[in-house]
Amino acid sequence: MPVGLSEPEVLLPIAGVRWGVAVAGIKYADRNDLALMEIAQGAATAAVYTRNAFCAAPVTLARQHGSATATRYLLVNSGNANAGTGAPGMKAALESCAAAADVAGCNIEEVLPFSTGVIGELLPAGKIRNALPRAYADLSADNWLKAARAVMTTDILAKGVSRQIEIAGKTVTITGITKGSGMIRPDMATMLAFVATDAEVEPVLLQRLLQQAVDGSFNSITVDGDTSTNDACVLVASAQAGIAFASETDAGYAELAVAVTEVLQWLAQAVVRDGEGATKFVTIDVQGGGDEAECRQVAYTVAHSPLVKTALFASDPNWGRILAAVGRAGIDSLDVDKIAIYLGQVRIVLDGGVDVLYTEAAGQAVMDEEEITIRIDLGRGSAQAQIWTTDLSYDYVKINAEYRS
Amino acid sequence: MPVGLSEPEVLLPIAGVRWGVAVAGIKYADRNDLALMEIAQGAATAAVYTRNAFCAAPVTLARQHGSATATRYLLVNSGNANAGTGAPGMKAALESCAAAADVAGCNIEEVLPFSTGVIGELLPAGKIRNALPRAYADLSADNWLKAARAVMTTDILAKGVSRQIEIAGKTVTITGITKGSGMIRPDMATMLAFVATDAEVEPVLLQRLLQQAVDGSFNSITVDGDTSTNDACVLVASAQAGIAFASETDAGYAELAVAVTEVLQWLAQAVVRDGEGATKFVTIDVQGGGDEAECRQVAYTVAHSPLVKTALFASDPNWGRILAAVGRAGIDSLDVDKIAIYLGQVRIVLDGGVDVLYTEAAGQAVMDEEEITIRIDLGRGSAQAQIWTTDLSYDYVKINAEYRS
Repeated sequence: MPVGLSEPEVLLPIAGVRWGVAVAGIKYADRNDLALMEIAQGAATAAVYTRNAFCAAPVTLARQHGSATATRYLLVNSGNANAGTGAPGMKAALESCAAAADVAGCNIEEVLPFSTGVIGELLPAGKIRNALPRAYADLSADNWLKAARAVMTTDILAKGVSRQIEIAGKTVTITGITKGSGMIRPDMATMLAFVATDAEVEPVLLQRLLQQAVDGSFNSITVDGDTSTNDACVLVASAQAGIAFASETDAGYAELAVAVTEVLQWLAQAVVRDGEGATKFVTIDVQGGGDEAECRQVAYTVAHSPLVKTALFASDPNWGRILAAVGRAGIDSLDVDKIAIYLGQVRIVLDGGVDVLYTEAAGQAVMDEEEITIRIDLGRGSAQAQIWTTDLSYDYVKINAEYRS
Repeated sequence: MPVGLSEPEVLLPIAGVRWGVAVAGIKYADRNDLALMEIAQGAATAAVYTRNAFCAAPVTLARQHGSATATRYLLVNSGNANAGTGAPGMKAALESCAAAADVAGCNIEEVLPFSTGVIGELLPAGKIRNALPRAYADLSADNWLKAARAVMTTDILAKGVSRQIEIAGKTVTITGITKGSGMIRPDMATMLAFVATDAEVEPVLLQRLLQQAVDGSFNSITVDGDTSTNDACVLVASAQAGIAFASETDAGYAELAVAVTEVLQWLAQAVVRDGEGATKFVTIDVQGGGDEAECRQVAYTVAHSPLVKTALFASDPNWGRILAAVGRAGIDSLDVDKIAIYLGQVRIVLDGGVDVLYTEAAGQAVMDEEEITIRIDLGRGSAQAQIWTTDLSYDYVKINAEYRS
């Protein structure tokens, strides 16, 4: 079950953004699996996509269509990733966008497609075309939670969050939803995330804001180390709150940037909390590095170690596995005698070996918690990095052994 | 259960090498957990060790003691890795070597220590000292299988093999044993492997032979991507077969090198076949690469993907996961339209998408086998690399969640 996560009770509407959902019957029976986001004219849209070389047809097409100012609709389906589908997959993505453009009365270039689900099966564009009129008729500012549910695959809970801040006497609202549970080591963004604010943000600035917010959120999580073919994160600024930002030095922009980053970080952590089979939410905090890159390298090596992950699942303070993972992380000239490793506040490793003050009982108390921080001090600099991950449980194997059956 | 592996029926003795075993009671009750190899004077010894920065005390000490011509005893224990144990661990390793030197009447520098088992617990040197006289009294040329059993930890089967070849009218014998099942992504060697031949090989040449043989064997396997703190592989040339090699151009040397490599490859593959929770033996064969390094990078990315591994466990031809792993392997300027992927002889991916001739039934037939080859043609050069790995099963999680309990 998800770790410290529940479904949002309320997701605040964003003026200028509406969602509609429908049952297209792509893979799941009797549940919404199609979501259409409408973006009012005058909004700006930024997006980041997977760096997986085998990116899916919708990602290729969304990159082509993507325009900072002319994007009017996001068309999202679950149950089929339309990845590894070659030329027929691109044709299906185009047909889906064309169908949305027909229903909405816009140009096909104004529609960005997003797909998530099983890889390697052709997207049934006909089913999407049939369902689109119902999704369009359903468009409403209050449908964020319905959209969050429609885009789920192996997710257990719908994931979304809202923030409101006051800037110069104006109320600015940010709402975001995300989906993702497995194949999670985002390299640009997670599977799918859609975030909107009613502030007005100049397009180039909006793209930079998204990129910076993604680095400390979706690009800092991992469930299983597998970067998806379909990762995408979209940030819309609908320009309806009566406040505009054109530069990073504008009054109030810093507050907006912090709030947007918090929303993305909350969403990214929610993906980990709902990670496939997760029973633990684990923060890996690497400090004292020569640069941020080596801190991240150590953090991901520990986070991806099947032995560390199974020890976390077992609530076993088997810190030797953490130490072994740090040692194999490939850091040049690593002096193990300077490394300290902590479980929560408990120091376990000092001077290359177990801390003489460490007791198994103290380590066990930390590991018994659902939320665990592993802190590694490399003792060779002042850089740091933090990532979030899960354990590796029977249920991860079960979910992924049975995914297509 | 191990995949296509059974215990050796016979391991041929090597003149000049004797093994003795004993019950030291380090972790396991009522089973041999101490093994002592005696190497006759006149032999040469080569060794390679883990590159894990947190290498264990015995590895550090064996590197210090290691001499190509003066090594007389290998002292091996299971049940405790003596890793992450700092200065007390080094003291325990020294005490163990001193005890062996006392019993055998040699210098402490002539003894190399090897430990395998749980990380982070202090090696009980007193128990080893107590058991050493019994191991010494047990020394015999016929004890290879007993030694293979004594060094096991989570291994299900003892692993060993012998080869005999005729060179210039002389019979040359090679026998090797290995242990290892989890924390297996050797970076020099696997957990522990001990190989001996009765040929005479000049020490520098012997070290080169070992290094070359290791690259295509122990350095080409992975179970879980976790490089151990204790990896070590030792090759002894006892110089008792009446044939000597001083250079790679010597007549018959090529045959010897092939036979030694075959022994190491058999042992390395045996570690994978007996990998923790393994139900499949998987060969990943990457071809058409720009260089060997990128072929290995792709192969290991696929081999370490939890999603590929769980699909293998489920016998699910979910090739989309293979494609996604290739796509995230970090290869510069990868042109996915040139990539072909095969399951066994069945081509599944061509031109960036599923091969139009591919059928699920054909893929399923390959995945139903216990031994599976995944072949990836990158279509950008002539380099290739081959590695061997396992699937990821419930039992892997179970074994590693319960290891210390």
